[in-house]
This record gives sequence, structure tokens and C-alpha cells, in this order.
Amino acid sequence: MLQYPEPLNQVIEVLRELPGVGRKTAERYAFHLLDANPEKLRQMASLIGTLQTEVLRCSLCGCLTGQEKCRLCDPSLRDTSSLCIIANAKDALIIEQTHTFKGMYHVLGGLLSPLEGIGPETLRLDLLKNRLETSLPQELIIALDSTVEGDATALYIAREFQYLSLKISRLALGLPMGSSLDFIDSGTLAHAIAARFQLS
Amino acid sequence: MLQYPEPLNQVIEVLRELPGVGRKTAERYAFHLLDANPEKLRQMASLIGTLQTEVLRCSLCGCLTGQEKCRLCDPSLRDTSSLCIIANAKDALIIEQTHTFKGMYHVLGGLLSPLEGIGPETLRLDLLKNRLETSLPQELIIALDSTVEGDATALYIAREFQYLSLKISRLALGLPMGSSLDFIDSGTLAHAIAARFQLS
Repeated sequence: MLQYPEPLNQVIEVLRELPGVGRKTAERYAFHLLDANPEKLRQMASLIGTLQTEVLRCSLCGCLTGQEKCRLCDPSLRDTSSLCIIANAKDALIIEQTHTFKGMYHVLGGLLSPLEGIGPETLRLDLLKNRLETSLPQELIIALDSTVEGDATALYIAREFQYLSLKISRLALGLPMGSSLDFIDSGTLAHAIAARFQLS
Repeated sequence: MLQYPEPLNQVIEVLRELPGVGRKTAERYAFHLLDANPEKLRQMASLIGTLQTEVLRCSLCGCLTGQEKCRLCDPSLRDTSSLCIIANAKDALIIEQTHTFKGMYHVLGGLLSPLEGIGPETLRLDLLKNRLETSLPQELIIALDSTVEGDATALYIAREFQYLSLKISRLALGLPMGSSLDFIDSGTLAHAIAARFQLS
């Protein structure tokens, strides 16, 4: 049977490793690249190749930073009394877009997931411990996904640091804004009823 | 507002040019690449960068070929009496998978689309004319999409080459195998009724 030329097959295989990309989509991308402007293709290859060395991560908070000094860790710009725990660097950008949090961040680098072999030692928890013991914030805001893994990680952190006298909170559970009760699962609705807020 | 570091932004922008990829998907891919195995990332960049120079196209039929000599144009392996017109090189592989066609191929490199500025001169029609006049096949099978552009291109080809004494055909229109009448549009159904085949 006729096969794709090997270099094309190899590109299809690497593209399949992108999240949510299967064989058909990878083929579609590969054929697009095959017909792309050669200059753009070279540029794409070079940007991808240098991505990891060009994008720096702050050694303290773990957030992405274009420059050496992390703006999110600058005590003159941020409120050092609250520390927000996030799973990935991307989450800091999502929270920053709300313009409601001015504290510091700490990236865990994932969520606890015994099935995938992600235990406490693979997360940035030792760094968090050091940070909490030296900088002594008043509040720890756990901004993790409300999934099984997020819940387990939040619980682990809350137990691990209960010996410190700090307030530990998690993000509220409830209806997303603009949502309809028709499409809300009963778990979320139960939480929203229990945590209802008074209008007058 | 906090922004992504510039090298990350640039990767997001190039990934957005892949077909069907929007901002959110490109971000997802970029963050995946950021955390990918560095060795794999280098390999990906290098494979993408060399794709266009590594994958050769046959100068006669326009199909993709790993080697210098195109197996689809070898008269000792293929039936030279029929020539199948396809829009893109990928289509040859799709047709080969059916194991029902043993003739030659000719890649047009697209479909006529005046709105997108694709006229007859941008397609490989001059090469097709040369080929038809020199190799004199008996049948021209137009295997193009059954879309407005595919129909227009098929009609153009049929008119352009009617001076040659050859049979010109198009792929049958009808129900896809395994489909239900509930989900078939009336245009397809009308074709399927008109072109019904006798069982006994």
C-alpha cells in the first residue's frame, strides 16, 4: 500500500503528541505545513526550538517571566500578606485578568494524581514550605481546579500546613455567571444553595 | 496587565495559523510544548523545519514521493490508460487505500475559486494538457470534492478537454455506506434515486 513519505510521517507523529490531536488532525496540520510559506515554516521551527530556553520561570514563584526579575514577586508592587497556590504558570495569567488579586503566587507544577504517578515530592511543595516559613503570609488562597485531583491537592496542602497560624481558603463553588439552572449539575447546585449570599 | 512572555506569544501566533486552530487551542499547544521533553521539542522543530525540503513531489503527477522516482508514475506498475484528476497530493493516498484504482494520477494543486483568487492559471492545468496530448489516456476520472468549487473545476476540465477523444467521468453521487435516510440532504437523495442500480 502507498504510504506517506517518511519525513511527512515523522511530522505527523510529533504533531500527534500535542494535546487533543489525533491522527486525522495531525495529518491536516502536516499537509498545511507542507504547503505553507517556506519562510514562515522556518520561523515556526526556530520559535518552537528555542521556546524552552527563551521563556524563563521565576525560581521563587514558578511563574513565566520574559525577564530575569519576576514582576509577580516584587514586594513593592504586590501584597506579600496573601499567597495564591496555583497548579500551572498559566493560571497566574488567568487570575491576573480578573484584576482582583494583588498578592503573590506559588506554582505547584501540577496536581496530586497517584494514578499518574504524581506524588507530593514531584510538586513544588518543599519550596512552598520554605516560603511559608520565611515570608509568613497571613492567607493561603488555594486556587486549584475543582476536580478530584484539585480537591485532593487542596486537602493535602491544608493538612500539611495547618501547624502554621495562617488562614487557608479555596475558591468558591457555585453557578458560573450567565449560566442557567437547566444545565447545572446537582453537586454544584447543592454547593450554591448551601453557600447562598444575602441580597437584603 | 500581565502578558505572556514574548517568545511564548510568538509560538502561540504561529500555531494559530494551523487549520482550525484558534487562540485557546494555540495556547494549549504552546503550554504543552513549554513543558515537553527538550529533546522531543528539538526533534519537532527540526522535523518541521526540514519538512518541505525532505518531502519531494513528482514533477509529472504532483504526488508526494519519498524517493526521486515516483511509484505512481511507473508504467510497469500502473495502468496508463486512465488518469485520475485530484485536487491535492493527499487525495492519491485516500484513493489508493480503496485498492480499486490502478491508473495514473494528476494533482491540480487546488480547486477553482474566483473568490479566493484561484483561477485556471494557478492550477496544474497546462501540465495536464501536455500530459493528455502526449500520453493519450482513454479515460479521465475527475475525483474532486462534490462542492461548488469541485463542480466548477470538473466542468472547466470537461469543457477544456472535450476536443480530445476521451471518456471523462466523475465520482458517483449517492448515499455514503452505512448512512441513514434520516440524515441525507435532499440533493444527494435526488441523485441517488436518479442513479439507482438494479438488484435483480
